[in-house]
Amino acid sequence: MAGKKVLIVYAHQEPKSFNGSLLKITVEELTKQGCSVTVSDLYAMQFEPRATRNDIVGPLHNSEAFKYGVETWEAYKRGSLSKDVVEEQKKVQEADLLIFQFPLFWFNMPAILKGWMDRVLVQGFAYNLPKTYDSGLLQGKLSLFSFTTGGTKEKYATRGDIRYLLWPMQHGIMHFCGVKVLEPHICYAPACVSEEKRKEMLTAWTQRLKTLWKEEPIDCSPEWYFK
Amino acid sequence: MAGKKVLIVYAHQEPKSFNGSLLKITVEELTKQGCSVTVSDLYAMQFEPRATRNDIVGPLHNSEAFKYGVETWEAYKRGSLSKDVVEEQKKVQEADLLIFQFPLFWFNMPAILKGWMDRVLVQGFAYNLPKTYDSGLLQGKLSLFSFTTGGTKEKYATRGDIRYLLWPMQHGIMHFCGVKVLEPHICYAPACVSEEKRKEMLTAWTQRLKTLWKEEPIDCSPEWYFK
Repeated sequence: MAGKKVLIVYAHQEPKSFNGSLLKITVEELTKQGCSVTVSDLYAMQFEPRATRNDIVGPLHNSEAFKYGVETWEAYKRGSLSKDVVEEQKKVQEADLLIFQFPLFWFNMPAILKGWMDRVLVQGFAYNLPKTYDSGLLQGKLSLFSFTTGGTKEKYATRGDIRYLLWPMQHGIMHFCGVKVLEPHICYAPACVSEEKRKEMLTAWTQRLKTLWKEEPIDCSPEWYFK
Repeated sequence: MAGKKVLIVYAHQEPKSFNGSLLKITVEELTKQGCSVTVSDLYAMQFEPRATRNDIVGPLHNSEAFKYGVETWEAYKRGSLSKDVVEEQKKVQEADLLIFQFPLFWFNMPAILKGWMDRVLVQGFAYNLPKTYDSGLLQGKLSLFSFTTGGTKEKYATRGDIRYLLWPMQHGIMHFCGVKVLEPHICYAPACVSEEKRKEMLTAWTQRLKTLWKEEPIDCSPEWYFK
């Protein structure tokens, strides 16, 4: 939708990958719609996933014992978080929609993307206890997890429901910060299907993007995940 | 139990933390029992969480398009994974029990620990399709997730069951590789309780360790998580 701002947080090493194709389509289609699109290409940026003392510029609040959560909260308040974190926070602040594009690694996001969550969404910026969930500080924003899997849909279906693994990401992170969640977009096993099937998957994503702004967020309750 | 080998994968920045105390207790108690204990102190090692081309020494299997899963599998077979990954794999190979000690970050493990999973448990080493789950390559080993939370037990209970977030870690990673899982050990909100209560939590962990080798693994089915 024209005027909307979108941040794509992208975690794949290879531009020629299927994830790379999905990213390209997203940028092209949303730009065509008149959206302003920003991409955080985590591997290309060599984004730091480790939550360390380096995330705080200058002296610590408590130099006796390092508590990452306390230190980053204090550093956020006094404007002394490291530059790379501040830049990501600015992108999040401006965005109406956050799209996370990645290959599923171990029923979860790759470490580099988990590190983005750990370091960017600090207290004071993304939530402020007890301001969480519906009172989270990132209210008014939307998010969408778009990912590829190694295993087929049938494989995942034999071991519980794929929604189970969305709980920590969608509920535990996005919902916790007050961000509403659109239906995830899952491309199953693109490496194992025909070129034709892969093209169909890309077309389906393009089609979905065309009406994305009309979608309603999913129900945030445990029932959506574990019904 | 005398003679057993234990690998503790530890992810906290601060030795004086509650996680640090739990680690210390684990090492002391298991050593006292006659176990051989190894610790991978991920922050102290500055362990690399990013899954990149650097994990493969020498030329790639396919230099046209980088596929991490394929490249690390091939590199494993020809013995050309990077040194830090090989060292961790050796520790895993030798261990009878893997203990993961960490503070919960966003309903999940910290990125540095997720990166350990992503980079160490590669195909060929930890599983070999279709050899997964009960035929995973790390059969015969046990694992235990021991973690602290920021929120209280009551807080977690109001938003689904804490077991929900164990699914990707215990089932999606450990069980996938054939590793059996002991009951997780959860210390709720140590930062928010009295010194006395903290001491009680440490004592409870010491006590559990004394009879750890008599414990039966949990039932690996979805029912354990979502009953």
